[in-house]
Amino acid sequence: MSPPPKTPTASTPATTAPTAPTGAGSPPGSTTPTATTAPPGLTTAPPSLTPPAPLPRTTALPGPPNIARSLATRRTGAIPGLLYRPAAPADPVKAAEVDRRLEAWARALDLFPPAWRGDFSGFQFGRAVVLQHPGALDLERLTVAGQLLLAENLVDSCYCEEDEGRGGSRLGLGGPLVLAQSAIDPFAGPAELEAEWREGVQADGPLRSYHWSVRDFAAFATPSQTDRFVHDIARLHLGYLAEAAWSETRYLPRVWEYLVMRQFNNFRPCLSIVDAVDGYELPEQLYARPEIQRITALACNATTIVNDLYSFTKELASDPEHLNLPQVVARNEGHGLKAAYLKSVEIHNRVMEAFETESAALSATSPLVERYARSLATWVSGNHEWHATNAHRYHLPDYW
Amino acid sequence: MSPPPKTPTASTPATTAPTAPTGAGSPPGSTTPTATTAPPGLTTAPPSLTPPAPLPRTTALPGPPNIARSLATRRTGAIPGLLYRPAAPADPVKAAEVDRRLEAWARALDLFPPAWRGDFSGFQFGRAVVLQHPGALDLERLTVAGQLLLAENLVDSCYCEEDEGRGGSRLGLGGPLVLAQSAIDPFAGPAELEAEWREGVQADGPLRSYHWSVRDFAAFATPSQTDRFVHDIARLHLGYLAEAAWSETRYLPRVWEYLVMRQFNNFRPCLSIVDAVDGYELPEQLYARPEIQRITALACNATTIVNDLYSFTKELASDPEHLNLPQVVARNEGHGLKAAYLKSVEIHNRVMEAFETESAALSATSPLVERYARSLATWVSGNHEWHATNAHRYHLPDYW
Repeated sequence: MSPPPKTPTASTPATTAPTAPTGAGSPPGSTTPTATTAPPGLTTAPPSLTPPAPLPRTTALPGPPNIARSLATRRTGAIPGLLYRPAAPADPVKAAEVDRRLEAWARALDLFPPAWRGDFSGFQFGRAVVLQHPGALDLERLTVAGQLLLAENLVDSCYCEEDEGRGGSRLGLGGPLVLAQSAIDPFAGPAELEAEWREGVQADGPLRSYHWSVRDFAAFATPSQTDRFVHDIARLHLGYLAEAAWSETRYLPRVWEYLVMRQFNNFRPCLSIVDAVDGYELPEQLYARPEIQRITALACNATTIVNDLYSFTKELASDPEHLNLPQVVARNEGHGLKAAYLKSVEIHNRVMEAFETESAALSATSPLVERYARSLATWVSGNHEWHATNAHRYHLPDYW
Repeated sequence: MSPPPKTPTASTPATTAPTAPTGAGSPPGSTTPTATTAPPGLTTAPPSLTPPAPLPRTTALPGPPNIARSLATRRTGAIPGLLYRPAAPADPVKAAEVDRRLEAWARALDLFPPAWRGDFSGFQFGRAVVLQHPGALDLERLTVAGQLLLAENLVDSCYCEEDEGRGGSRLGLGGPLVLAQSAIDPFAGPAELEAEWREGVQADGPLRSYHWSVRDFAAFATPSQTDRFVHDIARLHLGYLAEAAWSETRYLPRVWEYLVMRQFNNFRPCLSIVDAVDGYELPEQLYARPEIQRITALACNATTIVNDLYSFTKELASDPEHLNLPQVVARNEGHGLKAAYLKSVEIHNRVMEAFETESAALSATSPLVERYARSLATWVSGNHEWHATNAHRYHLPDYW
C-alpha cells in the first residue's frame, strides 16, 4: 500500500539541506506556458527539459490570499513543471517541541512495537504538522494534529503494509480495519460486551493511538468536527481495502478508477481538521454542501497525487508492481514511464487549478469559506514543502 | 455475507397470513420476569418452554410515547422471550403503490440483471418501508426510502454475495465497494477523468441504483442528512469487508468482535434517514453528539440482531459456517446452538432495553430528540414486524 498517511513519517530524517536532485534551472514562471498565467503566488517548478503540455486556463485566478508571494523563489527540490504554492518554512524550535510532546505521548501509551524503540526522531511528525498547520491556534492543537498523523501511520504501517515486517497483511485486512474504526466510532451494546470491546481496543498500539488521539481531538473540536474526522477515517479505510483488494487480485485499475481509490486512500483526514487546529469551525451545514465537499476533495486529491509523484522512484525500487499514478497511466495507455510521469504531473496540475479556481469563487461568498479554503491551501503547500525538501526520502526520476 | 439490507428483500413473497411456527402460548407479559417490568408498550413474546434468564432492570421505563399500546396483542410469529414494540399494520394499498413506483423506477434505470426480470413482486420493498416509516411525510419520500433500500440490496446481492450466482465475490471485494461508494461520494478531478468516472458509475445496475437513489434523497434531505447517509454507507461497506475478510481467512471472531462488525454491517443507513423521510431534521449539531450517536447505534444494533435471530435457521441451512450471533456465541462459549440462541435473544433484549432507557432520558431534554428517538423506535418496531410476519422467509428454530 502507498497510503498518504505513511508518507510524512519518513524513517530516515532529512537532516541536511535539500539539494536539487535534477537540473532545475530557470526561475519559476519564466519558462512554461502554465506559469505565465498562473494565479498569483502559485508557482510552477521550472522544468529543465520537456515541459508538460500547456494547461488550458480560462482565467487568471486570484487564489487564496495571504499566501506569501515573496517566498515564490526558486525551489530546488520541487518536481519540474509542478504547480504549487510555496510554504512558510517550518520553525525548527516549534517542530522540536511538538516532537518532544509526541514522543512522550507515544511512550506513555506504549504505541510502538519493541523493534521500533529509538526510532522516533526519524519520523519528523513535528516538522510535518508545523509545515501543514502554520496557523495552528496553539502548540496543544498542533500536537494533537501530530498524534492523529502518528496514529494514521501506525495503523497503516502495522495493519496494511506487508513489506514492513510488522505483521500487516492485505489478506483479511477488513477484520483489523473494522476493529480499528470502532476505536473511534464506539461500540454500543450490553455493558459486559462493551467492557470487552473497551479492553480489546486498548490491547494493541495502533488501536490505542486511534482511540486516544481522537479523544484528545474531541476535547477541542466540536462533535461535528469529530464526526467529520471519523467519516474521513472510514473513507481512508475503504481506500486501503480497495488497494489491498486490487493488489490481491492483481487487478489493473483504469486511471479514473485508480484516482477514485486514491480519493479514499488519501490525505483527507489530515486536511479536514484544518479549521479545528486553527481554532475555528466551518459549520457543518456549510461543510456538507456539495461545492464545499468538492473543493475539499480537490485539495485532498492534489496533495495526494503529489505524494504519488514524489514517492514514485522509491515505490518503483521497492516493488515494480506497486500501483501509483504514473504506473497506472503507463500500463493503461501504453506509455513509457517517463511520458506517464509527465502526464501525471499534468493531471496533478489540472486538479490543483480546479481547486484554485473553485475555491476562489466560493471564497467570495463567505469569509468563513474563504478562511477554510485558505487553510486547505496552506496545508497543501506545507505538505508539498515536506515532500520537496525531504531529499533523504525522495529522489526524483531522471526525466528532465 | 448476511447483510441486513439484504433481509427485507425476500425473494419469496409472504402472501399469506403469518402463522405461528412455534408454540407461542400465553399473552404477552404474562410469563417472563422481563415482561412484568417491561416499559409500557414494550412486549415480550411469550416463550413456550425455557425463558431466558431474568433481565436486570434498574427502573420501569416510560419508553417513546405514541407507541400504540392497543396493538400489543399476542404476536404469533415473534421469537419467544424477545422484547419488542408492536408495529402498526402496513397499509396494503400504500405498500402496493410504493412497489408500483419502485418497479417503474427500477425498470427505467434497468437496475436488474436479466435473470431477475419478473422477480420484482417478490421483494416486498413497499411493505418493508411502509412498516418502517409509518410517519413518512408523503409517498414520494416513502418511495425514496424504498429506492435506497433497493439499492443497498442490489449492491450487497450483486457484489458481496457469492452464493447468489450474480457474480459477487468476497475476494477482491474492496475494489467494487470503493467504486460503489464513489457513486454517492463524487470523484473530483480533471474534467475528462470525471467524465469517465461518471460513465463508469452508470455502467452497472448496482452503481446506478446508489447514484440515482441518493440524488433523489438529496432533493428533499439537507446536505447534512445526505452526508449522514454517505457516512453510513461507508460504515456498511466496512462491515461487508470485515465479514468477507473473516470468511476468507476463516477467522472466528469473539462475540464482541462479531457485534462490532455487525454495528457496521448494519441496518443503520435505513434508520438514519428517519427524520428526512418524516419531513423534519434532527440538526447535525445534535445528531453528532456522542449520546445521540449512542442511541442511534443501540437502535440500529437491536434491529440488526433481530435479523440474526430471525434468519438463523435460513442461514444455517444454506451455510452451516455462516457467522451470525447464535453461531458465534456457540463457537466461542462451547454452548450448544439452542443455549447460544437463547443467550443471543438475551443480548438483543439488553441492547433494546439500553436503547429504551437512554432514549427516554434524552427525549426529556428536547422535543426534537424525542421525535427522532420515536422515529428510530418506530423503525425498529416496523422491521421487527416485517421479520416476525415473514413466515415464508423465516422459520424459527424448535427451541421452545
